[in-house]
Order: sequence, then C-alpha cells, then structure tokens
Amino acid sequence: MNKRLSELQQWLRETGTDCLFINDPGNVVYFSGFESEPHERILGLVLFPFADPFLFTPSLEMEDAKKGSWPFDVISYLDNEDPWAIITNEMNQRAAQLKQLAIEKDFLTVMRHEKLAQSLEFSQFIDATPKIQEMKLIKSSDEIERMKEAGKWADTALTIGFNAIKEDVSEQEIVAEIEYQLKKQGIKEMSFETMVLAGDNAASPHGTSGSRKIKKDEFVLFDLGVVHNGYTSDVTRTIAFGTPSQKAQEIYALVLEAHHAAIAAVKPGVTAGELDAIARNIISEGGYGPYFTHRLGHGLGSSVHEYPSIMQGSNLVIQEGMCFSIEPGIYVPDIAGVRIEDCLYVTKDGCEVFTHTPTAYTSIL
Amino acid sequence: MNKRLSELQQWLRETGTDCLFINDPGNVVYFSGFESEPHERILGLVLFPFADPFLFTPSLEMEDAKKGSWPFDVISYLDNEDPWAIITNEMNQRAAQLKQLAIEKDFLTVMRHEKLAQSLEFSQFIDATPKIQEMKLIKSSDEIERMKEAGKWADTALTIGFNAIKEDVSEQEIVAEIEYQLKKQGIKEMSFETMVLAGDNAASPHGTSGSRKIKKDEFVLFDLGVVHNGYTSDVTRTIAFGTPSQKAQEIYALVLEAHHAAIAAVKPGVTAGELDAIARNIISEGGYGPYFTHRLGHGLGSSVHEYPSIMQGSNLVIQEGMCFSIEPGIYVPDIAGVRIEDCLYVTKDGCEVFTHTPTAYTSIL
Repeated sequence: MNKRLSELQQWLRETGTDCLFINDPGNVVYFSGFESEPHERILGLVLFPFADPFLFTPSLEMEDAKKGSWPFDVISYLDNEDPWAIITNEMNQRAAQLKQLAIEKDFLTVMRHEKLAQSLEFSQFIDATPKIQEMKLIKSSDEIERMKEAGKWADTALTIGFNAIKEDVSEQEIVAEIEYQLKKQGIKEMSFETMVLAGDNAASPHGTSGSRKIKKDEFVLFDLGVVHNGYTSDVTRTIAFGTPSQKAQEIYALVLEAHHAAIAAVKPGVTAGELDAIARNIISEGGYGPYFTHRLGHGLGSSVHEYPSIMQGSNLVIQEGMCFSIEPGIYVPDIAGVRIEDCLYVTKDGCEVFTHTPTAYTSIL
Repeated sequence: MNKRLSELQQWLRETGTDCLFINDPGNVVYFSGFESEPHERILGLVLFPFADPFLFTPSLEMEDAKKGSWPFDVISYLDNEDPWAIITNEMNQRAAQLKQLAIEKDFLTVMRHEKLAQSLEFSQFIDATPKIQEMKLIKSSDEIERMKEAGKWADTALTIGFNAIKEDVSEQEIVAEIEYQLKKQGIKEMSFETMVLAGDNAASPHGTSGSRKIKKDEFVLFDLGVVHNGYTSDVTRTIAFGTPSQKAQEIYALVLEAHHAAIAAVKPGVTAGELDAIARNIISEGGYGPYFTHRLGHGLGSSVHEYPSIMQGSNLVIQEGMCFSIEPGIYVPDIAGVRIEDCLYVTKDGCEVFTHTPTAYTSIL
C-alpha cells in the first residue's frame, strides 16, 4: 500500500470511520495512480480501516485499471447495472460494520449521496475533504519537480504566443498557434481554456478569446497553463503591442508593484490574508481598489485550482511546500485589463516561482 | 421573461415550490443566456413562483453578466464574502416564505447543499433535475439547426484527421493538427478531449491519445466533437490504414451492421432498451457480446453527455425531437477496437443523423 493510502487508512482508524468513498477523479488518481475521466459514470476508490481498498470503475475502464499499477481489486459495473447495489455489497464484504462513512462533501452530489445513503440505511456520513486537502496542501519534492516542468512549458507557451502577435491576427488564432505547437511537442492537455485577450476585452477578468483582432497600442493578456505528468501550471502576462495609453501603463506599473511586493513577502509564517492585503493595499493606495475584483491567488497542484485560497481575511498560515498563485489584477472597463500571475512554491525562508517569463513592462511591435 | 424561464416558473407554482436554485453552469446558460465557467466559485440562477429571478455571480463576472441580454438583477459576491449569506438574504427578500426549495440534486454538492440548508434553517428540498431533464430532452428546431452545424464541423474535423494519417505520425500529432485547423477557423472548444487511437490502443474504449505512432495495416479510431453556438457534436469513425487483419475486418463489419440496424430502427414509439437490444443482439450473435462493454448511446445537446441513456432495459419511449448517439463498439485486447458513432435527431417517422462522413469500411494508404 502506498504512503498516501496508508495515511488515509490511519485516519480512518483514528476517526473510527468504517469506510471512505472517494469519488473525485482527481483524488482517485492522487491516491491510486489510476487516471480516468468517467464523465457521468461513477469512478470510485473505496478504503477501509482494516481491509484492502478497491477501485470501482465502469466496466469499459476495467481493463485499463487492471493493466495499471494498482495492486488491489478492481470492481466494475455495466451501464445497465445499479452501481450503488454493487459498491455497497462490496463495502459490506470488507467492513465489519458500516456505521460511519467518509465522503468528499465538496465533490459528491446530493443525488449520489442519497443513493449511497439509501443503500446503507443505517450509516452516518462525515466529510473527508479537510483531511484530503491537508494531505494535498504540502507538496513533495517530486510534485514540485513536476510543477517546475509544467511551469517551463507555460513559459514556452508564452513565447509562442508573444511571437504570434501581430496586427489584425485574432485572439483565437494566437490560441490555436500556442496549443498546436505544444501538442506537436507532446503536451496533451492545457490546465484550462487558453486565454488571449486584447485591449478592452482584457478588462473582463474571465473573458473568452474570440475573433477580436489585435490592434496597435493596446495590451494583450495571456492566461494559460499546461498539464504535465499530472501536474499543472498557471501563468498570466500582459504585454504591450506598441504603446498603450498613459493610463494603461500606469495600471501596469501598479499591478507589477503589487505582484512584486506580494511575492517578496511569501515565506513560512505569514498568513494568506496578509499576502492579499500587501497587494491590495498597493492597488488601493494607487486609486484602483474597486477594480481589483478577485482574491490574490489560489492553490494549485494536480488540479489548477485547489485549496487554499489566498484571500482577504484568511488566517491560513503559509508553510514550506505549499504551492499557489500570486495574481493581482486591475480591470477598468474601456481602459485596460492587466493581470500578472506567477505560481510558486514556498521554501524554508521564502519562495521560488515556477515561471520565468519576465514581468517587467514589455512592448513588442 | 423567456419561454424556458416561464415554464420553470409555472412548475414552481404547480409544485408549491418557493424558490429554485440552479447551480449547473450548463443549466444557467440554458435558462438565462449567461455563459460562464466559474471554476470553484459559485454561479447561480435563482427563480421564484411570483417574483423576478436573479443571476448570482462572483463579482469578477458581474460586468459581463450585466452587459449581456439578461434583463433582471445580477447579485454578486466578493471572494472574501460568504456567498450563502448573500444569496439567502436575496431569496428571503423575493419569496413570501422559503418552506420548499428546488435544487439540482444531480449537480449540487453535499457541501453546498449543507451550506444552503444551514442558511435556510426551516426549508425542505426537492429535486428539479427531472423537470429540467424533461425540458432539455426535446430539442427545438433552433437547437437542431445548431447541432447540425456542430455536426458539419465534426465531419470537417474527421476529414482533417484522415488527411493527417501517415506512417509513423503519432496519435497526438494528428490531434494537434485537427484542433489547430478548427481553431484557426474560429472553433473555440471541442466537446471533449479529441481521441485518435491506433491499433491495439483503440481496444480501450476510453483510451487517451499519446505518442503511439500509426503503423501500416491497423485501424485508427477517431472520436471527437465540436462545440458550436453552445451546442455539441460527437462522432466516431474507425478507418483502416492499409489492410488490418481478417479478424479486425470481421469486427468492423459486425459493428457496422449493428450501427445500421439500430439507426434504421429509431423512430417515435420505440424504447431506448429496444434500440440497445437490436445492436447488442447482432454483436452477440456474431460472437462478440462480451466485448461490447458499454451502452448503445447517450443524449446530447448543449452538453455532450446528457439525459437519456440508450441502454439495456430502458423503457424510455423515444419521441420526436430527441437527440442522441448510436455508438456500438467491439474491443478485443491485442486484436482491434472498433466503434462507429453518429448522433441523430428523431423525426416524425424516423431520424436524421448530424454527421455524414461515410461509415462503410474505408482503407487509406
């Protein structure tokens, strides 16, 4: 049994929990090594305090699961079978009793929970989310190595994107170019839909790239990431094409100052809320407080958005091995949208960023 | 208020429900027109039997929501605010009472449900999923037109893919080529991760494309789809590169026969289970029953997998306007994997498929 599974099993013993049902595909791969996108079908990993765990897969995934490195049982169900009857039958065979079950309350749907509860009439349910979050929070050196690689690919993606900027090329054409070059080099998946946003379009912090063409003297915002060996990267750069307005440049300088200051403050012992405040105060004092409409950052690892949230008021104490983004932004409708984001890992006395594309104001033409 | 919202409002009145909380981004866009990917943040659409609905968005989405065609209120929350306190406060202002709430039990997580329930101490919850599924089940002519367009793009994608096949090119390079050409032509999103699987790799029904290179005399399986104007397509073709083994060709012929027979049987009045049985019997009689490890098909529309499931034992009666896939497959490890899939819409007395790439055995070299 791998170390992660052993730790979960130990937790089941300590909390007097008879069974743990993991349903989030990201957690299934984290604990079992079996990667699968089940869509609406049910994929599960089921653990017990004193018996071996099993993987639960749609039958069309069974061969893949058995071929992999998973050393324990694989239980499967056909599309026309009742998965809940099958899984609870298997649970009953492996547990002395099923009085207390742990589930992922942040992932399991109400419907699935009700079906499980109906099949296990006398069980009560506790939440495994805090335990799993805690385990995933501190990254091992192996995980950090993977994230460094993913970060390098994100830098490569930015370089491809910057080279593709020219007048009258559309945002979407630049996205196509970035993803094509990466996929030709073996990258299978981006962390999320690649964003290339030009001019006023970037003033929407979650805009989508479209047929909008790049024009001279505006900013182009790139927000992208790459999944590599199961780990993600996430980076944002806002680059000038020509010479944006004085106001837009002023916004850039302020975001950059906030970005630098927050990164410089990252070290074990500081709180997430303090980091957010450092960036937010700079932007507020610069007069743009209301235009920084989101938290400073988010955790990332095997998924691109995960616990913790680097936000106002958070008392979470930063520890060595945590990985998260620092991404202040200012979005002024019809003027400019600027965001500068790096992800980093916390070291013994500071931090290291995963991406190295320069953050200084850069104009290309 | 649009027709869809009116129908939901009418349902709230008929069922004596005081409020409906829609949380699935796909349903939010279906009912409100506002499209957004909130990641782990909360996006909602809240309806009442006798008051105007409101959209509930993270504050960084607020501007976009207000700029769109949504004519009612947009309520937002900052990352450091408690969204549940804000949303339930707004609910209380618009409803005379909150005794009965409807939620999407197939989407809402246990955690969100608990938070909502804690904020609304005396409410009971019913499931809106069946009502929403029923509404989305029968597509309008406008929806079918969009799906026809998405189908055409899927045919284009296959043509690009077929043209990219040559000896020693990798699966992943073909994926890159397909997506690049489509994105250059303005397609923003595929329905799911494009699959190009060669030879024995295709014997896994949910395999992922990788560095495996195309070799002579094997099948190459393409499973892909395109999102266009908010609607999806989904198609699978398995094409011979050279001359696969006699056994592999025999498998192809059997899958094709099952595919044709099932499509020929689609018309209003037949059940989903009968359609599955028609295809499954042909494959079983051909001796490959155990290798057809999944249901015959799935509904699709604004999402690529939706209600209903075309599977063994289903008594669901097929009606005009339903859209679903027919995709029999046979997967024999180390021999071949063959699947042939078309999506279709049901007409008054039969059906029409959305994709027109020939299904007959085709060999290219």
